Amino acid sequence: MQSATHRVNRNSLFLTLKRYSSAVRDMEQTILLPSLLRDVPSEDPWDCEAAEEACRDLHANYLMLKAIRNTAESSLVPLDDLKAKKTALDKALEPLLDADPEALFHFHLNGLFSVMSDLTNKAHSVTEKYLDIIGVAN
Amino acid sequence: MQSATHRVNRNSLFLTLKRYSSAVRDMEQTILLPSLLRDVPSEDPWDCEAAEEACRDLHANYLMLKAIRNTAESSLVPLDDLKAKKTALDKALEPLLDADPEALFHFHLNGLFSVMSDLTNKAHSVTEKYLDIIGVAN
Repeated sequence: MQSATHRVNRNSLFLTLKRYSSAVRDMEQTILLPSLLRDVPSEDPWDCEAAEEACRDLHANYLMLKAIRNTAESSLVPLDDLKAKKTALDKALEPLLDADPEALFHFHLNGLFSVMSDLTNKAHSVTEKYLDIIGVAN
Repeated sequence: MQSATHRVNRNSLFLTLKRYSSAVRDMEQTILLPSLLRDVPSEDPWDCEAAEEACRDLHANYLMLKAIRNTAESSLVPLDDLKAKKTALDKALEPLLDADPEALFHFHLNGLFSVMSDLTNKAHSVTEKYLDIIGVAN
């Protein structure tokens, strides 16, 4: 048992989750007044809806990043909370159900790495923007 | 640092990967003559192509499960090896690129849980089938 535990412990998905967790902890410890982020637009085009609706503000990003951190640490997926957001993803899932399980495994592993890396950058960016707002140089 | 490491260590994605790794190790330790699995058809409909081509045999499954175990333990994605298999998944990925990052995170995490659980069952099933072939009762 020791060897398998040791190998999985060192894997980079584990490190990716730890890195994200650490970025969000820094964000939480730095941002003492999250309300200062209200109505501050995000500069990330990812935060604007495709239908050109209002962009998400940094306060919404702050809350989202904290919520994802809780899930990333426990790796439990709160399915009920996500039903409303699942329509587009469910449609995307259909062709995947016929896919080779090996390709499907790599697709999700790769996807998880990619989204965790983007979210880690987003946490750093919210932290930096907060320091800008309160006038502290990085 | 201790608390975050501890929390991520206990998470269920880690346990899911460990469970898979353990199922493949049992499979390897049990199957002393993998060549006995050649031309034994898999009973899993997942192993047949959508275009009704030949189904994958248990020997191919055995090799695939070992290859995925190596990737699951190191969590490094051998992109070059997968180029040929990526067409359908690439098409499926397009609508995901516009998705909310929170939904995308849950989609991949959920997908990874689901595929790892299916692959773990597949490893158990190959092991059991081998024991049937050599006439050992489970």
